[in-house]
Amino acid sequence: MAADNRSPVTVIGLGAMGRALAGAFLDNGHPTTVWNRTAGKGGELAGRGATVAATVTEAITASPLTVVCVLDHRAVREVLDPVAGSLVGRTLVNLTNGTPCQARETARWAAAHGADYVDGGIMAVPPMIGRPESLVLYSGSPEAFTAHEPAFGALGTALYLGADAGRASLYDIALLSAMYGMFGGFFHAVAMVGTEKVPAAEFTPLVVSWLNAMIAGLPAMAKAVDSGDHSTADSNLEMQATAYVNLLDASRDQGVSTELVEPMRELLDRGVTAGRGGGDISALIDLLRTEPTPNGSGR
Amino acid sequence: MAADNRSPVTVIGLGAMGRALAGAFLDNGHPTTVWNRTAGKGGELAGRGATVAATVTEAITASPLTVVCVLDHRAVREVLDPVAGSLVGRTLVNLTNGTPCQARETARWAAAHGADYVDGGIMAVPPMIGRPESLVLYSGSPEAFTAHEPAFGALGTALYLGADAGRASLYDIALLSAMYGMFGGFFHAVAMVGTEKVPAAEFTPLVVSWLNAMIAGLPAMAKAVDSGDHSTADSNLEMQATAYVNLLDASRDQGVSTELVEPMRELLDRGVTAGRGGGDISALIDLLRTEPTPNGSGR
Ligand SMILES: NC(=O)c1ccc[n+]([C@@H]2O[C@H](COP(=O)([O-])OP(=O)(O)OC[C@H]3O[C@@H](n4cnc5c(N)ncnc54)[C@H](OP(=O)(O)O)[C@@H]3O)[C@@H](O)[C@H]2O)c1
Ligand SMILES: NC(=O)c1ccc[n+]([C@@H]2O[C@H](COP(=O)([O-])OP(=O)(O)OC[C@H]3O[C@@H](n4cnc5c(N)ncnc54)[C@H](OP(=O)(O)O)[C@@H]3O)[C@@H](O)[C@H]2O)c1
Repeated sequence: MAADNRSPVTVIGLGAMGRALAGAFLDNGHPTTVWNRTAGKGGELAGRGATVAATVTEAITASPLTVVCVLDHRAVREVLDPVAGSLVGRTLVNLTNGTPCQARETARWAAAHGADYVDGGIMAVPPMIGRPESLVLYSGSPEAFTAHEPAFGALGTALYLGADAGRASLYDIALLSAMYGMFGGFFHAVAMVGTEKVPAAEFTPLVVSWLNAMIAGLPAMAKAVDSGDHSTADSNLEMQATAYVNLLDASRDQGVSTELVEPMRELLDRGVTAGRGGGDISALIDLLRTEPTPNGSGR
Repeated sequence: MAADNRSPVTVIGLGAMGRALAGAFLDNGHPTTVWNRTAGKGGELAGRGATVAATVTEAITASPLTVVCVLDHRAVREVLDPVAGSLVGRTLVNLTNGTPCQARETARWAAAHGADYVDGGIMAVPPMIGRPESLVLYSGSPEAFTAHEPAFGALGTALYLGADAGRASLYDIALLSAMYGMFGGFFHAVAMVGTEKVPAAEFTPLVVSWLNAMIAGLPAMAKAVDSGDHSTADSNLEMQATAYVNLLDASRDQGVSTELVEPMRELLDRGVTAGRGGGDISALIDLLRTEPTPNGSGR
């Protein structure tokens, strides 16, 4: 790898994800400095050429670009607040999971300390990092994103979502909710067949092809949401609300907790009550809107 | 289509799904007789060659095989109880959604009236019927399944799951729970980005590729469930429980109901409390087991 023309990068946080990020920078020839709260997590990376910094300040001042990926927003601020002065004139990229409000709050904090700020969301698990299928969402300073785009390329596919630092986090969290919904459905499904001793590994290929078939219907639902036209000739909501009762009854019969599947029944019933029974299930999305919290999570 | 060597088939119930089933039988050259509670739904099928029976008995006696696909178990029994005698020596295939207990109960009922019984679950929406990607699950009488397998082929891919009439329904309902979990996650995701005026159609391609990437991880979770080894070096449960709080906070900040996403938080927290925080999220599946209901839904 041609290290000479690759810019130096610092990675703060060497959990499973931070180590994967640092490893990808190293693989792409970036001079890489790392730091972690608890010492001893950088050993393998040092063996691959990383510099293990003794202090956060030493880590930040080693590179024009610092990527922070720690547990949560509070950890970000615990690490960076004491050394804010060292960020002046540098770029901070925060790939820690957080809310849009938290991202905007950190953007204001960074601006107040003379740092360029980009927030991000990693749509990948650590083994995917560095591969094209690893999608990393970014938003915030357009100049900083453009300047460091080559480095971001080391992590996978970079998608820039605009100047609002909160936008990447909004997409990240929305995509995570889609994932956890799918995981919850999978958990329930596996628990159901497990009650009759069907091995999960035997059943899962059916789940995978079924989910793939049903994913193909999501773009049509999206179109219905955007147009407001939820009419259907195929699978009406009332029929689905009726079948859903079987899903709950069968769960109780088999001895599987209904905790993950109960809320969809309430939502289906609300849809029928709201007069949407003849239409598509996509009509339920409108029923999820509530009043936003006035002050938000970006304390 | 060579109608001569195709066996006659009767379809009871001409909702969206019943019409699709009858249409597929017609497309494959089966002499097809149809009946529906409310008259007037068979017009288009009659135009394609179907015989519209005036009574249920007339419909059943027209064919050695009757497929029933109505709203629910209660509707099945309302239609068939009065004409049970006409089923003697024939095969009844019930593709109505129901619970395993209901399927076994209907199997006993059919046996008491001298009919062969196969229960089934349709893993497809009506426009898919007749195409190979339309999967129909069957279980119950092995002789009846084998005898009518050529006719089942008209509906898509037929998968026979054994002599227990309840097995197809168990798989059906498990697969539906996976689908509704995914739908719920998608609904929440679209509602989230919708709060900032991101069109659903613009966002959905990201959801689709993200879900496809995450589906690739399900077989590994299945393996963990079967082996009981939930260790991971990639994405520990405690980290996920922490990030999940952001998902809830961001939902409140944006004004999206947390109703669909709340139960996963409780389950994640229960996993951490149970000492599974360092392992994979697949460990949560074990926590869904409860005591089965003694008498069940097959009344
Ligand atoms: N792993 C994934 O699949 C994945 C995917 C997408 C996004 N993410 C996000 O990436 C971030 C890191 O996840 P991970 O998988 O690397 O988690 P992890 O393996 O549990 O590591 C957590 C990291 O955060 C550090 N940390 C925690 N509290 C801290 C504090 N108060 N001050 C300083 N450092 C602190 C830990 O340092 P110590 O070693 O000192 O404890 C460790 O480096 C999270 O925001 C997560 O949501 C993870
Ligand atoms: N559509 C799908 O995507 C899909 C996919 C898989 C499985 N399924 C299952 O297929 C079955 C039918 O669904 P569908 O989409 O066709 O529903 P649908 O369009 O709402 O039609 C319901 C059918 O059930 C009949 N029915 C309802 N109550 C009845 C009663 N008490 N006695 C006699 N007939 C009665 C209706 O007759 P009337 O015309 O007289 O009201 C109509 O033919 C359901 O069990 C559903 O869960 C549907």
